[in-house]
Amino acid sequence: MAKPIIFGGSRGKVLAVKIAKLTGFELGEVIVKSFPDGETYIRFMNDVKGRDVILVNSVHHKPNDILVELLFEIETLKDLGAKRVIGVIPYFAYARQDTRFNPGEVVSFEIVARMLERAGLDEIYTVDLHLHRVRDISEIFKIPAYNLTAVRDLVKYVSKHYKLEKPLIIGPDEEAEQWAKIAAETLGVDYDVLEKKRISAEEVVIEARTANVRGRDVIIVDDIISTGGTMAEAVKALKGLGARSVVATCTHALLVGEALYKILRAGAEGIVASDTIPSPVSYVSVAPIIANALMRRVGKE
Amino acid sequence: MAKPIIFGGSRGKVLAVKIAKLTGFELGEVIVKSFPDGETYIRFMNDVKGRDVILVNSVHHKPNDILVELLFEIETLKDLGAKRVIGVIPYFAYARQDTRFNPGEVVSFEIVARMLERAGLDEIYTVDLHLHRVRDISEIFKIPAYNLTAVRDLVKYVSKHYKLEKPLIIGPDEEAEQWAKIAAETLGVDYDVLEKKRISAEEVVIEARTANVRGRDVIIVDDIISTGGTMAEAVKALKGLGARSVVATCTHALLVGEALYKILRAGAEGIVASDTIPSPVSYVSVAPIIANALMRRVGKE
Amino acid sequence: MAKPIIFGGSRGKVLAVKIAKLTGFELGEVIVKSFPDGETYIRFMNDVKGRDVILVNSVHHKPNDILVELLFEIETLKDLGAKRVIGVIPYFAYARQDTRFNPGEVVSFEIVARMLERAGLDEIYTVDLHLHRVRDISEIFKIPAYNLTAVRDLVKYVSKHYKLEKPLIIGPDEEAEQWAKIAAETLGVDYDVLEKKRISAEEVVIEARTANVRGRDVIIVDDIISTGGTMAEAVKALKGLGARSVVATCTHALLVGEALYKILRAGAEGIVASDTIPSPVSYVSVAPIIANALMRRVGKE
Amino acid sequence: MAKPIIFGGSRGKVLAVKIAKLTGFELGEVIVKSFPDGETYIRFMNDVKGRDVILVNSVHHKPNDILVELLFEIETLKDLGAKRVIGVIPYFAYARQDTRFNPGEVVSFEIVARMLERAGLDEIYTVDLHLHRVRDISEIFKIPAYNLTAVRDLVKYVSKHYKLEKPLIIGPDEEAEQWAKIAAETLGVDYDVLEKKRISAEEVVIEARTANVRGRDVIIVDDIISTGGTMAEAVKALKGLGARSVVATCTHALLVGEALYKILRAGAEGIVASDTIPSPVSYVSVAPIIANALMRRVGKE
Repeated sequence: MAKPIIFGGSRGKVLAVKIAKLTGFELGEVIVKSFPDGETYIRFMNDVKGRDVILVNSVHHKPNDILVELLFEIETLKDLGAKRVIGVIPYFAYARQDTRFNPGEVVSFEIVARMLERAGLDEIYTVDLHLHRVRDISEIFKIPAYNLTAVRDLVKYVSKHYKLEKPLIIGPDEEAEQWAKIAAETLGVDYDVLEKKRISAEEVVIEARTANVRGRDVIIVDDIISTGGTMAEAVKALKGLGARSVVATCTHALLVGEALYKILRAGAEGIVASDTIPSPVSYVSVAPIIANALMRRVGKE
Repeated sequence: MAKPIIFGGSRGKVLAVKIAKLTGFELGEVIVKSFPDGETYIRFMNDVKGRDVILVNSVHHKPNDILVELLFEIETLKDLGAKRVIGVIPYFAYARQDTRFNPGEVVSFEIVARMLERAGLDEIYTVDLHLHRVRDISEIFKIPAYNLTAVRDLVKYVSKHYKLEKPLIIGPDEEAEQWAKIAAETLGVDYDVLEKKRISAEEVVIEARTANVRGRDVIIVDDIISTGGTMAEAVKALKGLGARSVVATCTHALLVGEALYKILRAGAEGIVASDTIPSPVSYVSVAPIIANALMRRVGKE
Repeated sequence: MAKPIIFGGSRGKVLAVKIAKLTGFELGEVIVKSFPDGETYIRFMNDVKGRDVILVNSVHHKPNDILVELLFEIETLKDLGAKRVIGVIPYFAYARQDTRFNPGEVVSFEIVARMLERAGLDEIYTVDLHLHRVRDISEIFKIPAYNLTAVRDLVKYVSKHYKLEKPLIIGPDEEAEQWAKIAAETLGVDYDVLEKKRISAEEVVIEARTANVRGRDVIIVDDIISTGGTMAEAVKALKGLGARSVVATCTHALLVGEALYKILRAGAEGIVASDTIPSPVSYVSVAPIIANALMRRVGKE
Repeated sequence: MAKPIIFGGSRGKVLAVKIAKLTGFELGEVIVKSFPDGETYIRFMNDVKGRDVILVNSVHHKPNDILVELLFEIETLKDLGAKRVIGVIPYFAYARQDTRFNPGEVVSFEIVARMLERAGLDEIYTVDLHLHRVRDISEIFKIPAYNLTAVRDLVKYVSKHYKLEKPLIIGPDEEAEQWAKIAAETLGVDYDVLEKKRISAEEVVIEARTANVRGRDVIIVDDIISTGGTMAEAVKALKGLGARSVVATCTHALLVGEALYKILRAGAEGIVASDTIPSPVSYVSVAPIIANALMRRVGKE
């Protein structure tokens, strides 16, 4: 049987090369171009008939362009006779619009999931999906869906490259507790989350729920840095509470505007992210965890 | 029964106001914004439960953003309980990718039609859809689909605003014959199309199939001006063949790059388009033909 | 002596063709491209040595790209031996940043004027320059500078194409009085401006300074429509005061976001602008007033 | 005397924080925003009167926006009374347009240098400026100009993080010999450059000038990776010539389109760049070399 073939879409080409190298799967070539009028052109250069196809594409920076590209790619692969289309979508946009906050609003997380399934996607692998009101990835996808985590590799990287004495893991808010816990278990250290406490009508302070931060080397763990506001505030609070040093980590470095600057200016010693979204602080690649997950299941039968 | 409500998406707001005025339908309000990370936010400000909803949006200039917006809007209107969602999509992107020219290519026209139907669209109205290999709109859509034409209003406008002595209608190539014919019937004049004729191994000339152009006032009729290359070439050829004056018309003024300049520099006296895509030469509004078509069918039962 | 040659930069090509036709000046060709890394490439295709050169370029939509292009073009024309470089800059960006509103701010109007002069510009023609704190164009430019107006042609167009009974001209605020006056003189009718009057701590009303609006057909005259907020507010106020109809006009149709929609939804019967910035409502060309001004002075000696 | 103050423009904020930390200079704050019409707004939040001001901004990704910002910043700092304005421009755009390749072309390198000087810049620090036809930075700038190099730190990083047995340094073409030489001296190893040799009318091969590549661990050294074409070709050639491993390095990672993918797919083991242009492969910061250079000269008198 032909071995699986892996294609990198326009936000997945570098990861596709790395995953192909790690898995031994064939690296295919898909051409993606924009016409002068903004329409997307796509052409698969390899025969996919009867084969398991892995499609790597991360939906960020002009997410709508990538979403349309992804839907076109899935439909076309199916039309070209692919046996199964397995999507590797390291960063999955629209996950934060997961409920109708106000009447008349779009619930785009749900719609995007449906569109991918209807286009013919057979399986999906993603990394540290923003699950908040939706608690498990199986609540949002009807197809087999695997939510990997980059948190272990992120904190191992920090632990190796920064001189930390028994670090303390901190989640910047309650939602981040899920990742803080994984990070703490990985390094065998303790963790906590920050909370906003109202002191008076005018004054709010940010404190750790229970931990004493003073003199500690803190690693902040979160899923996304978008504008950097939450992270910068957390860094500032922790420095104010007496932390000796603070390193900020996240899986998805969206880094809108001056995010890095805000966090560094707030006093962070460093910022470390994964390459689900390539960025100047993407020191940790998710290629190995994706390759491992794929090798366990794809091309086995 | 509540009267139909009409919403303008981010490329349909001006047309929606005009159509609402002409039809007497209620004008609704939908908010469409972009988050800093490029995700689209949408909120309908009117209750649509049980009502016929008309959604106006033209898929051009960042067509993928608009396509995603449109899909989100249709899904959300259905989810909010709209009785029927009637799409008015004056310019329909991706119609030129209607077949697999090379192995492995995406056939996006077909896919986009399917995506709109699956999202829940009940009916579609469009204008001068680029139908080439697909001969009729019913071959591409399974839902009721109406392909209106702006050609009559375009040539009437030219006839009124330019001093022409018994104009000759010209289609710049064979594909444009369908529109040239409508234009000629509208004005009660003759028409022809241009053809490339090979003179020798090196030389190709552009000529009218049978008509004598010399001394005539020519109106060129086409569906789309994209980069303006075809139209500029046609203008130049017609001037070279002795046409007294040439006015270029099209329904969809995509106008990529220096299109208008090329056509004017080639010698066109003027350029006239419709407002399916708003442009500096969109002198003719399609609001009346769309309003008429809608009033004939929507809100009747 | 060689006759003047006219070049259209990337926001001036259509106007350049029209002005060349009206003046009989030679139409030159300048190629402007963007490299993939965003750098601008420019090449003049005609010999300019010893000639008067007219350079048409309007600084809008990515104004910084156009400003850099303009500076490169002026410097290069001088370097190539042009006798004089006469800039036609129908829309001149940065005119609203004409003072230091807060400490530390850039006063860009002044800086841009200096940059153009230092690059070697010999004369400048512009249209309805936003002069507010700076009262006359000669206060900002040291080179000969001509500030033309499109207001006369705008209101003549409205007067011809809309059925108005003795129209009333209205400036939406005090700054617009200068254009309202010209418009009123052109049509031989009266004019006024709107004012915000505070009724109580909470309530502000917009009223005409002295004119009675009731039953009148109003033409609003302003220099710029940017987001459309001011204009929409004026339309709404005038309709509320009993105006029979309102047509909005401006010279420069920047039209950021949903400007046209806001103004139409507020109740405007129509919107009419010039083509200093090409737009879907640019029904009036400034080519004739620019051609006239140039013919009076350029290529005479 | 007040110590020097350092501002980061919109492409220099992260470097400014790092340089401030290393030098002990005060970190100032400049707000840079875009208005909805694309105009740039700038405000300095610190008093600069009588002080030495260091302005960090790298001219890439929308270089014209940054160039205009830079000119506005310099003019404004001077206007606000800064004693000296010292520009740190790690990546300097337009350096490749350093001559008139065809008649009528802009020589933008020269023009940009003049514009910066006229705006009031007193000194300039840059990194690995693309000097080709212009041989020394003093030929292009009249003000004191310092051309630092990141090459030493780049090859030291590679040497530390990759297991290389006595590496061979290669410049991908003759122009790169200047950097290859520095790299070789830094690591105490040999170097060479690649050459295209014509075998027959149809066939061209790429070879090292004299070095034997077989079995060697090669570090390619160049100033810029733009589309990645040159680098990918070099990697491929070196692998074809029997190199055991190839690591690609450059100072300026412009990375247009699929540059990283092309180079990895060609067989590179890794890609390492500096942060003159922040990128996913910017593992080496130029902050230390810039800080050192500044401390040697600024704030001394």
